Amino acid sequence: MSSSDLSQRHQKLAGVLGKQGLDALVLNPGPSLPYLTGLHFHISERPVVVFFSPNKPPIIVLPELEALKIQDLPYPIQAFPYDENPANWKKAFQGAIQAGEFEKGRIGVEPRALRVLELQFLEGAAPEAQFVSGEAVIAELRMRKDAAEVAAMREAAEIAQKSLQATLPMIKPGAAERQIAAELVIQLLRHGSKFAIPFSPIVSGGPNSANPHATPTDRELAPGDLLVIDWGANVRGYFSDITRTFAIGEVDPELKHIAEIVREANAAGHGCAGPGVPAAQVDHAARRVIEDAGYGQYFTHRTGHGLGLEGHEEPYIRSDNQLPLEVGMSFTIEPGIYLPGRGGVRIEDDVVVTPNGIENLTDLPRELVTLEA
Amino acid sequence: MSSSDLSQRHQKLAGVLGKQGLDALVLNPGPSLPYLTGLHFHISERPVVVFFSPNKPPIIVLPELEALKIQDLPYPIQAFPYDENPANWKKAFQGAIQAGEFEKGRIGVEPRALRVLELQFLEGAAPEAQFVSGEAVIAELRMRKDAAEVAAMREAAEIAQKSLQATLPMIKPGAAERQIAAELVIQLLRHGSKFAIPFSPIVSGGPNSANPHATPTDRELAPGDLLVIDWGANVRGYFSDITRTFAIGEVDPELKHIAEIVREANAAGHGCAGPGVPAAQVDHAARRVIEDAGYGQYFTHRTGHGLGLEGHEEPYIRSDNQLPLEVGMSFTIEPGIYLPGRGGVRIEDDVVVTPNGIENLTDLPRELVTLEA
Repeated sequence: MSSSDLSQRHQKLAGVLGKQGLDALVLNPGPSLPYLTGLHFHISERPVVVFFSPNKPPIIVLPELEALKIQDLPYPIQAFPYDENPANWKKAFQGAIQAGEFEKGRIGVEPRALRVLELQFLEGAAPEAQFVSGEAVIAELRMRKDAAEVAAMREAAEIAQKSLQATLPMIKPGAAERQIAAELVIQLLRHGSKFAIPFSPIVSGGPNSANPHATPTDRELAPGDLLVIDWGANVRGYFSDITRTFAIGEVDPELKHIAEIVREANAAGHGCAGPGVPAAQVDHAARRVIEDAGYGQYFTHRTGHGLGLEGHEEPYIRSDNQLPLEVGMSFTIEPGIYLPGRGGVRIEDDVVVTPNGIENLTDLPRELVTLEA
Repeated sequence: MSSSDLSQRHQKLAGVLGKQGLDALVLNPGPSLPYLTGLHFHISERPVVVFFSPNKPPIIVLPELEALKIQDLPYPIQAFPYDENPANWKKAFQGAIQAGEFEKGRIGVEPRALRVLELQFLEGAAPEAQFVSGEAVIAELRMRKDAAEVAAMREAAEIAQKSLQATLPMIKPGAAERQIAAELVIQLLRHGSKFAIPFSPIVSGGPNSANPHATPTDRELAPGDLLVIDWGANVRGYFSDITRTFAIGEVDPELKHIAEIVREANAAGHGCAGPGVPAAQVDHAARRVIEDAGYGQYFTHRTGHGLGLEGHEEPYIRSDNQLPLEVGMSFTIEPGIYLPGRGGVRIEDDVVVTPNGIENLTDLPRELVTLEA
């Protein structure tokens, strides 16, 4: 990331903070921290936080042994390092709060990233400050992807697709879900994904495929199974997130039928999405196809979610979200039908809103492909 | 995990809660949740929490679309599922709080795992309850490993060691840190590690090795470099965490000298550890060797940390921790010397306290091994 990107983001943040009535934003290691700082920290028992506020350089609290990371930053930063004794950490947080004059501030946090660990130190150092959700600030900053971000996501989709193709030869009756998932991760790394893939792949066969969030098991594939694979890659911090469903040999006609309905629902979502369209309408378009076919009760989740530096982020493609889509917003379209005890189908694509509609980042076949023994 | 293991853990938890003056423990997805429930959830924007309290079955709040996960549990659980509309989630949390009679309770949380996301829902549903650190409860439950846990850690150490050996042939001048790290991860998976490895390996060469927590870069190894590799595997949720330092060709005599001092410091830590010995004393034993050699200021971190279901957990091997070691406690011994701008050395082993001393789980050579071009 260039230093001018970062300084543009800092400037934009200052404006958004004002609009949201916040004095500062405080981030711990998570997707927004590198976005605003270019810094990478492990999340651990040693708390790291960075405060951003208008008209001041960022202020960081960090372990002394990480201090080398901030030595050559292309922007000024004020650091409050602490040593290995946790009894001394409070002092570092107090120093940062005083330096920023945050004692009585209204300070946004990232609810999905900030832990009680950091919150305790923050509240301890600024008992009169208010720590509130800064989700709207984060979404406003990150929701519309620029060309470089879309390029990274495009690459992440390509790597994921190639990795699945490289894994397909091992997918046959007798192969265990867990084995397939392990091989798929290896292929993602071989094809150039960063190690921090968005999530551990879902590989679920037969009845397990009826669980949308199944964890791979030792169950071996058998003829007649549906097989759901949900996986993604990471390129420069940006994610892909794709799902395809396969048939292992000949499957029950109703399972073929639901695969066809889900394909149509996915296509309806694609057809509906574009600039100005409310997110809810994309959900509605996909859902109606499934409801009209009589399977509405088996489509148990929203149609999609935003995608970028996080696997799930704004905009959520959900029946209650009236947010109008804008150019640069990126999200998944992933309708599914899950028949308990029998099997499930999900088809998930990654798309980005363009001036004329959407760009589809994922183009693996959506028809039910049969993998023979 | 057997159902009798789980019920023993629930019983032990009930006793520990009483001793700590807590009415309940509430966990979100993190290492302690599978330990007490056998359940695996991704951490996401959909909050999942489980309450444990004496004389009641566990109470879970979870998304409806994950409900299949709790269908065949070997113990009773009371579930409050919620649908895809976040406006309805509060109701599920309120239901759980009422069912548990936690409205005015003193409830322990896991500060390193619970996020502001879950805390907001918990505090919203129980504004009069107190949510406090349950770290002592967790440590009391998990700190002493049983035979099955030690067996998993032993296997995780073996897998990590074999994976490094399989990676060594590619380590030579011209190889980039990032390439080596990617290959090491692939080898970990090939050798049977679970995908969720404890941390992204540290591979840091030349001056980068002077940063104890370096992130692998595109820097290529060159003759004269020290190379620090810090990595680990995951077996059934249990981690290994090992560091070895290599010389790339001929290195400066002082770098060889510090490698020898760190080896002696590591040996001093091993020699000192055993049942009844305070954790601080192990730190002191290793540190003194480095201080006596005149490099005390370059050993910038504690001597080690507990290891198990987390990469860092109790007992911390730190100068201020007077906790007496007990049989079954597992931790790292990892002294280091870091010369800014020049290079660093760290040698990290994983050990478990036994009735007679310690069992060493890691036995790769500790001498400075030179890798030639």
